Amino acid sequence: MITLLSDFGLRDAYVATMKGTIAQIAPRIPMCDITHLIPPQDILAARFNLRTACSHFPSGSVHLAVVDPGVGSSRRAIAFQTPQAFFVGPDNGIFDGILESDDILCAVTLTNSKYWRTAHPSNTFHGRDIFAPVSAHLANGVPIRELGDRIQPSTLTRLDLPPCIPNAHRPTSNSSTNSQLLCTGSLQYIDGFGNLISNIPQSWVPMSPPPSPWEIQIDTANGPQRFPGVSTYSDVPVGTLAALVGSHGWVEVACNSGSAQNALRSSDQTPAVMVGTTVSLRTASP
Amino acid sequence: MITLLSDFGLRDAYVATMKGTIAQIAPRIPMCDITHLIPPQDILAARFNLRTACSHFPSGSVHLAVVDPGVGSSRRAIAFQTPQAFFVGPDNGIFDGILESDDILCAVTLTNSKYWRTAHPSNTFHGRDIFAPVSAHLANGVPIRELGDRIQPSTLTRLDLPPCIPNAHRPTSNSSTNSQLLCTGSLQYIDGFGNLISNIPQSWVPMSPPPSPWEIQIDTANGPQRFPGVSTYSDVPVGTLAALVGSHGWVEVACNSGSAQNALRSSDQTPAVMVGTTVSLRTASP
Amino acid sequence: MITLLSDFGLRDAYVATMKGTIAQIAPRIPMCDITHLIPPQDILAARFNLRTACSHFPSGSVHLAVVDPGVGSSRRAIAFQTPQAFFVGPDNGIFDGILESDDILCAVTLTNSKYWRTAHPSNTFHGRDIFAPVSAHLANGVPIRELGDRIQPSTLTRLDLPPCIPNAHRPTSNSSTNSQLLCTGSLQYIDGFGNLISNIPQSWVPMSPPPSPWEIQIDTANGPQRFPGVSTYSDVPVGTLAALVGSHGWVEVACNSGSAQNALRSSDQTPAVMVGTTVSLRTASP
Repeated sequence: MITLLSDFGLRDAYVATMKGTIAQIAPRIPMCDITHLIPPQDILAARFNLRTACSHFPSGSVHLAVVDPGVGSSRRAIAFQTPQAFFVGPDNGIFDGILESDDILCAVTLTNSKYWRTAHPSNTFHGRDIFAPVSAHLANGVPIRELGDRIQPSTLTRLDLPPCIPNAHRPTSNSSTNSQLLCTGSLQYIDGFGNLISNIPQSWVPMSPPPSPWEIQIDTANGPQRFPGVSTYSDVPVGTLAALVGSHGWVEVACNSGSAQNALRSSDQTPAVMVGTTVSLRTASP
Repeated sequence: MITLLSDFGLRDAYVATMKGTIAQIAPRIPMCDITHLIPPQDILAARFNLRTACSHFPSGSVHLAVVDPGVGSSRRAIAFQTPQAFFVGPDNGIFDGILESDDILCAVTLTNSKYWRTAHPSNTFHGRDIFAPVSAHLANGVPIRELGDRIQPSTLTRLDLPPCIPNAHRPTSNSSTNSQLLCTGSLQYIDGFGNLISNIPQSWVPMSPPPSPWEIQIDTANGPQRFPGVSTYSDVPVGTLAALVGSHGWVEVACNSGSAQNALRSSDQTPAVMVGTTVSLRTASP
Repeated sequence: MITLLSDFGLRDAYVATMKGTIAQIAPRIPMCDITHLIPPQDILAARFNLRTACSHFPSGSVHLAVVDPGVGSSRRAIAFQTPQAFFVGPDNGIFDGILESDDILCAVTLTNSKYWRTAHPSNTFHGRDIFAPVSAHLANGVPIRELGDRIQPSTLTRLDLPPCIPNAHRPTSNSSTNSQLLCTGSLQYIDGFGNLISNIPQSWVPMSPPPSPWEIQIDTANGPQRFPGVSTYSDVPVGTLAALVGSHGWVEVACNSGSAQNALRSSDQTPAVMVGTTVSLRTASP
């Protein structure tokens, strides 16, 4: 199976052009869109959607990802293999989430033009001329080492995002009556529903039974705001914000039947949170 | 074949996550999107699109529909079988159109976690953790009764929409020179083109040759307005509204090369019609 | 393979209805969307996207295109065959780009109702009732001549778009120190990124080594503006406009990391360029 992710949008034929190119080389391989509505050149959004989707696909899938503001420049075109899948696209950080979580068995730069659509690729559409045909050949069983020169996995581009950091000064005593800081992270994505998705993993939430109450603080442009930890959207009234563990495994702040992002807008409609905004996990205030 | 309908949108990887989950279980089953742009939590829009699309798919198809504002609450997760197809999703009314028109051969609650993605599903994404894998197993041939406890089809959630009602006081004489009321219904959907789709079926329109002239009255927020019955869009000038039998088999009011919904807006741009607005079918005024 | 292009949008089930109809007739034929976000009834946009996409699909593909403002009127429903593919849709100009570039081996009007979904098609949805089933039968191997009456390819509707015209008065001497006009064309499409795509083909650009400098002049509503010819987006700073040969093989004006269309808006936000705006290719000013 080949999955496709891009910022090409759905209005024009750019995605279809890639799919036709794949179908010419690998006519029996099914294709599945992850999304083509990544905001133009938004590498962070590509990173998040690729990382959360790809683990759900069958083993051996080829994940083609093209958000490529540097097309035609000197950025590398790459493919790499993990224990579960193959990845093909530009080496600009869109694979950062995969590099963070998975082992890299083999990585190459796509220098072997035998597997391109043409030896003279367009300067503006490597998705069609390099990445799509290479993905099709991989799905057909061409060994990844045939595609070009081997490179060290450690040289693949990372994004240096701020990690989630535990509170070193957390009192070990349970006697405190105040809300205690457990860890500090940041927003890594705001989805189409307006859910604010942090990089605080589920494993940090005090869930061992009986579950301890917890809350999330977001340092919005209008000052810090806190939201109680709940189990699901409908645990709070419609229109109310709360924190919960999202389906992707990170803590998010959501609004029951609404958009948390919109609910936090300032009166002049400017957004009060964005990717990178500081988020902290705390025990609940008494 | 498995079809998918949701309000997940196309920007994020939620739909892809369901498709990957299906592909892991049923790799050879083709998938087809009905739509993922149902307005968030709009059960009426899901109901209409599911009902109009599903009858066109091959016999034995599995229709997966996830518009699920109550996910994580006590609403039931269900599957049921009609003579033509299988349906999988939350029991919240999205299947109302199917229940209205089709026989239900068997219905179950999805209580058998053996067919879930995990025995501990997310509180916010039953589409991925329950509905998608169950749909894949059904497409693979697992008997519907294996999926959980049988329930009475009569207990499945209906929406109690206002039906289309004939005019009990209709004069049987043809001598009247005034427009006569034939039946009264309501708008059941406004599509992306701005077509106003009523629940008045084609069979109520006086079509027997020679066709009698007819008209549609819509009780807009700005008062009742009438539109002549025609055969196709181009029977009236560009920009003009008229009533016709839509491709789905119901009477609709449309605007040639435009949006009937927009044409009926008030001067302050507020909409003058909505789902539920009263619509009546009449013989034409002389 | 069957590809689909329409202006039906992605919100409603119209596209799915066509796909289900195809799957009933040709269950093993893969389908691929070109786009369904053609602006409503925009025949020029359909023409451009169809022409640029279809050459990338496998030989023998069936291209189903439904942008059909005249549905239900007397416009012809057609299918035709080129050396590479089959095309099915209304005879209203959407195939103009194919007719311009490809040989037509056979063309028919779709008069044989045996290959329709029903002998009594809807007046408003020939996509479902005629074009989709005919496409499925073609993909199944039904000979195109079976589908209806043969027609002369020369009778298929063309759009009479202004061609790209060389400058008859171009001085043959290279001694001129001024920018010289090479040819005059027009904008044929503005894509979703805001790239302004002309009908000046790559072959007119002075590329022979050493490449001569060149520029593009666009006669905007605010007067003529010139843009230097470059190789790729990143040859100019972010936010800067330049001309380049696009991946489709025509000269376009693009904005690095932005929208050329938006950059050229007037201060009151009205667009300063549109499809049909005059574009000329010139040697660079010294």
